[in-house]
Amino acid sequence: MKAIVKEKERVGASLKDVPRPEVKPGDVLVRVETAAICGTDIHIYNWTQYAKNVNVPLPLIFGHEFSGEVVEIGRNVSQIKVGDIVAGETHIPCGMCYQCRIGNQHICQNMKILGIHVNGAFAEYVAIPEVCAWKLPSNLSFDIGAIYEALGVAVHAIFVDNIAGKSAVIFGCGPIGLFAIGLANFSGVTQLIAVDVIEERLNLAKKMGARITINAEREKVEEKVLNLTRGIGVDVLIELSGSPSAIRQGFNILRKGGRVSLVGLPSSRVELDLVNNVIYKGAKIYGITGREMFSTWYKMRAIMESGKFDPRPVITDKFNLSEFQKAIKLAETCTRGKILIKI
Amino acid sequence: MKAIVKEKERVGASLKDVPRPEVKPGDVLVRVETAAICGTDIHIYNWTQYAKNVNVPLPLIFGHEFSGEVVEIGRNVSQIKVGDIVAGETHIPCGMCYQCRIGNQHICQNMKILGIHVNGAFAEYVAIPEVCAWKLPSNLSFDIGAIYEALGVAVHAIFVDNIAGKSAVIFGCGPIGLFAIGLANFSGVTQLIAVDVIEERLNLAKKMGARITINAEREKVEEKVLNLTRGIGVDVLIELSGSPSAIRQGFNILRKGGRVSLVGLPSSRVELDLVNNVIYKGAKIYGITGREMFSTWYKMRAIMESGKFDPRPVITDKFNLSEFQKAIKLAETCTRGKILIKI
Amino acid sequence: MKAIVKEKERVGASLKDVPRPEVKPGDVLVRVETAAICGTDIHIYNWTQYAKNVNVPLPLIFGHEFSGEVVEIGRNVSQIKVGDIVAGETHIPCGMCYQCRIGNQHICQNMKILGIHVNGAFAEYVAIPEVCAWKLPSNLSFDIGAIYEALGVAVHAIFVDNIAGKSAVIFGCGPIGLFAIGLANFSGVTQLIAVDVIEERLNLAKKMGARITINAEREKVEEKVLNLTRGIGVDVLIELSGSPSAIRQGFNILRKGGRVSLVGLPSSRVELDLVNNVIYKGAKIYGITGREMFSTWYKMRAIMESGKFDPRPVITDKFNLSEFQKAIKLAETCTRGKILIKI
Amino acid sequence: MKAIVKEKERVGASLKDVPRPEVKPGDVLVRVETAAICGTDIHIYNWTQYAKNVNVPLPLIFGHEFSGEVVEIGRNVSQIKVGDIVAGETHIPCGMCYQCRIGNQHICQNMKILGIHVNGAFAEYVAIPEVCAWKLPSNLSFDIGAIYEALGVAVHAIFVDNIAGKSAVIFGCGPIGLFAIGLANFSGVTQLIAVDVIEERLNLAKKMGARITINAEREKVEEKVLNLTRGIGVDVLIELSGSPSAIRQGFNILRKGGRVSLVGLPSSRVELDLVNNVIYKGAKIYGITGREMFSTWYKMRAIMESGKFDPRPVITDKFNLSEFQKAIKLAETCTRGKILIKI
Repeated sequence: MKAIVKEKERVGASLKDVPRPEVKPGDVLVRVETAAICGTDIHIYNWTQYAKNVNVPLPLIFGHEFSGEVVEIGRNVSQIKVGDIVAGETHIPCGMCYQCRIGNQHICQNMKILGIHVNGAFAEYVAIPEVCAWKLPSNLSFDIGAIYEALGVAVHAIFVDNIAGKSAVIFGCGPIGLFAIGLANFSGVTQLIAVDVIEERLNLAKKMGARITINAEREKVEEKVLNLTRGIGVDVLIELSGSPSAIRQGFNILRKGGRVSLVGLPSSRVELDLVNNVIYKGAKIYGITGREMFSTWYKMRAIMESGKFDPRPVITDKFNLSEFQKAIKLAETCTRGKILIKI
Repeated sequence: MKAIVKEKERVGASLKDVPRPEVKPGDVLVRVETAAICGTDIHIYNWTQYAKNVNVPLPLIFGHEFSGEVVEIGRNVSQIKVGDIVAGETHIPCGMCYQCRIGNQHICQNMKILGIHVNGAFAEYVAIPEVCAWKLPSNLSFDIGAIYEALGVAVHAIFVDNIAGKSAVIFGCGPIGLFAIGLANFSGVTQLIAVDVIEERLNLAKKMGARITINAEREKVEEKVLNLTRGIGVDVLIELSGSPSAIRQGFNILRKGGRVSLVGLPSSRVELDLVNNVIYKGAKIYGITGREMFSTWYKMRAIMESGKFDPRPVITDKFNLSEFQKAIKLAETCTRGKILIKI
Repeated sequence: MKAIVKEKERVGASLKDVPRPEVKPGDVLVRVETAAICGTDIHIYNWTQYAKNVNVPLPLIFGHEFSGEVVEIGRNVSQIKVGDIVAGETHIPCGMCYQCRIGNQHICQNMKILGIHVNGAFAEYVAIPEVCAWKLPSNLSFDIGAIYEALGVAVHAIFVDNIAGKSAVIFGCGPIGLFAIGLANFSGVTQLIAVDVIEERLNLAKKMGARITINAEREKVEEKVLNLTRGIGVDVLIELSGSPSAIRQGFNILRKGGRVSLVGLPSSRVELDLVNNVIYKGAKIYGITGREMFSTWYKMRAIMESGKFDPRPVITDKFNLSEFQKAIKLAETCTRGKILIKI
Repeated sequence: MKAIVKEKERVGASLKDVPRPEVKPGDVLVRVETAAICGTDIHIYNWTQYAKNVNVPLPLIFGHEFSGEVVEIGRNVSQIKVGDIVAGETHIPCGMCYQCRIGNQHICQNMKILGIHVNGAFAEYVAIPEVCAWKLPSNLSFDIGAIYEALGVAVHAIFVDNIAGKSAVIFGCGPIGLFAIGLANFSGVTQLIAVDVIEERLNLAKKMGARITINAEREKVEEKVLNLTRGIGVDVLIELSGSPSAIRQGFNILRKGGRVSLVGLPSSRVELDLVNNVIYKGAKIYGITGREMFSTWYKMRAIMESGKFDPRPVITDKFNLSEFQKAIKLAETCTRGKILIKI
């Protein structure tokens, strides 16, 4: 089969012919129809410090956001059937550790990650454990199916605590940030402010429902947000930029007693003014990673079925597998929404 | 001044000329512009068992939902000024008991209620403690101001726990139920079902955003709701009917692990199947009364300012103070939304 | 093997010789060392309405609280090994329904119950799905192991919400109630009141740490509790009696804004004054069933390992399997704590 | 009257004769019986950067932890009476801002602090607003009354989320840390670990109930804690040291999904590994300041009345007002518990 393979510890990756993955007893084999590019894929492609830190075994087929059709199942598979349309959950929990046993599979002690620790989805076929196959409605487009994994992170970040009836600021309007904006709008956020440094993304933010957008390079974020909130600050901060200075800015405009969802991954340690921004503020902070298995997925299904949330404006581009390099280059510009790869 | 006075322990009330209320040191005197009729008012008018139970002192000016302009302030008043436009909080907390001191003023141990225990708002003027005067934006219409009190109950009931991304059924489409439907729709409820027995109110429910309406007299509520929810039941039950059989029905269609807000006041004890509907279900139930002081009011302000929630379809009728009897009679039909009294 | 078998739809059960249970691929076979008698067992023995309602298939080996040693494992078993000492989780979840997939296995939509729907533990051997085998420390006594299941209900009821630093009243001093008292004492309950109608059980309550015990037949419960709480009522009500009048009494002495864990199973519908006891009170009520799988079990392990909680005074009697009838008769007196059956 | 006055922007303070404070209409005048030294007092005495940052107006009577007897009341005071024994709440909320009105007085937008922004309690008399006077039982010793303010911070930090049945590590065994250890022990913490760098304080930690104490300078904190927790880490981190490296260490030993109460005030920004210690960990962090007004105080009263928590071992030293310099010098050694000043 065709697959994008990372072979060397340097920039790049190649489209190659490789054997189809083996299907273990607990696995399902999916013919990938649509995949999507995530920031992590760019790290692996460019072999950044991040990629080195997460111990990527080479050679590796990367990519972990995808949808497709199940074409084969292992002998221990009980729920998923050949012909099912599925989206993939990237996180492969062990199912046996303390975290898995108390309902925290998404922070499993022995987590493996698809497309990082095991072969992933930039390929014609991918084998995943049954637990990681989320069955989609048969009439859902594969393109929408391919964004479920990223959308799920936004669902997790937004809904980890009360959101309806509150004001919120979202830092970072990449694809997950854009989903978060759409979800916040859907969820009765009373004042919805999006912050980024790239004008194209702020335009997408508006399309997803942000009433106010702020270009952090051209405007005074703190002054503007405090003006908009009677000097009190916002109830909720959804941090998706991963930028240390944005994180600090976000905390500065959080109201006393406010809530933070930290999601974006800074590339280094972050200096925080804990005294004024956390302790004296009586702030409540949640670290958010992945999707709760499977509350987040069920909630996502309910939201999609409601017909009141449309994620499609976030999908800005589609490429064929053979155009993979071009897709990666476009993703690197940070001016686009979600970029899909049609397999 | 003119006022509607309840004088005798029997059906009825009269429009009379009475002295303006005295303004105590902590009071503000409000010239009432718009009042609204609540179910409690009908109880007092009809001198039902409920009215007898709550120890209404006669004679009494009743009415407790209103908006107006402050025309005089007591000498200890510090925040409210003459000329301020205000809505009234019905619950008069003592400010000193355990509940008041831990932030639970809405369930004060020594609560007095405007228009029940002290003279109320079906009058040209009403005197209320400063703490019960909520300042409105000067450009808000008095009609909208007059519904804040009832809207606040709906805000309290809906937002007492997570609501966004969940399915909900609302039993009872009186004014508070209709507000609750609008708020649920505003707040990202994924499946929004309204139940009542009166077609006119179900039509209002649709206007406020209910996707599905069920006439409990003509349709099989439980079958229909279970069909709509894959047999699992709804995530959230907002009970506003106060009908014992509706309450039981509501619990029957609640999903395991679901949440209930009990708001509607049954006129007698209610027989519940605690085993199957609460204990085995792992249900979580909140008793809801009044408005949290003042989280609910701030949340309401934020929701109204968002421009994304429109309560106006709930206001179906307006009468002059002299038409009070007519207004009460119309309210008794249970076919209308909120009925206003222009003073 | 020897087992207590319920054969007929009338009072009674017999000690019989029956074949050892079959071990399915996902099962573990446990040689039962100690079992314990639960109220449900008495219902089945006496063939009460409760037993009829839960669709017990006859003939049936009943009993569901036990500890023992694993002597055989099915071919799909991966974590439990022959020689492991285990306690049994009574609830057999399907693992695939909505509830199971969102971390609510204890309220599985398709729950089967050991000793009620499938053959149970009053026998020399019992086969249980691997998921229901909780591994115990090898040095734990089988007697202690046999109470884990009942203790877990108390852990679930007490810890479902904040308990430390609060006052609590526990209605019903049967074995679970006694465990709950011990746990409340362990957990920093500031005022710990136990209510029952049987003096022997109130004495056990004192042994487990209840500062105040009230005999509801001889003393005025409400007056006494209100006196003890400055007229405010208790913060937390743990209802384990299942008695309708006790439930109402409990709600009467709950403080405004208080919390209730409903656990005891009334034998019929219960009439509640929802207006005064739930709605106006702003109460928060949790239905509690079984043990959260497996948060409750891990918490229980941590509590037992702390060495600060001693459940042993609750174990008042031990019988051999052949003395089963005698044990049941003693349990029926409601004067004892937990009664064990040594197999 | 005699008072300790900070006069100059340099190290030191003097015992002086100054006029009694004026009693405003809303104030109560307290004859101080016992005061206690807090870290903030040492900052003011030594005129550190912290003191400069908080805008201390000179000259100032500092000190804010105290108990005493009310000897005069302003004309608007309604609850407190002459002769009442009271402890002081240090935080003087405005009572009118958004935070105060939603029940968050402890994080008032316009907070003033006793002994920092207005004259404090190292004096024979102190005038405080009525709202800041917490009435004590008349038989409570003044020494115990003087520690309520600091004890309250520990109560707030420990009880902000579930604690009973969890493991906890407490970093920093100063007075608040020692109270926190006692409270954790009282509250059913299953594994209670105290960390400090000073042996005397670790000994006090043991007296207050810490099962395990770790000297962070001599022992490997992370290795030891992970060994004690099966490699999983602790459920709860209570951070009272304010040391950046301790904070990082604390996060390293927090279990995935664990909870943090940040209380200790670092003297500068703190570099955190947000990716591994917050985001991937799914951590939940609370900033804690002051005491919730007045939930914390009521909880404290209930805990003290339970008779199950003894704060007295934390009180290690008492001095007369004239020995103030000596007391400050001893406090600076960080080897003692709470140091009292008898006025």
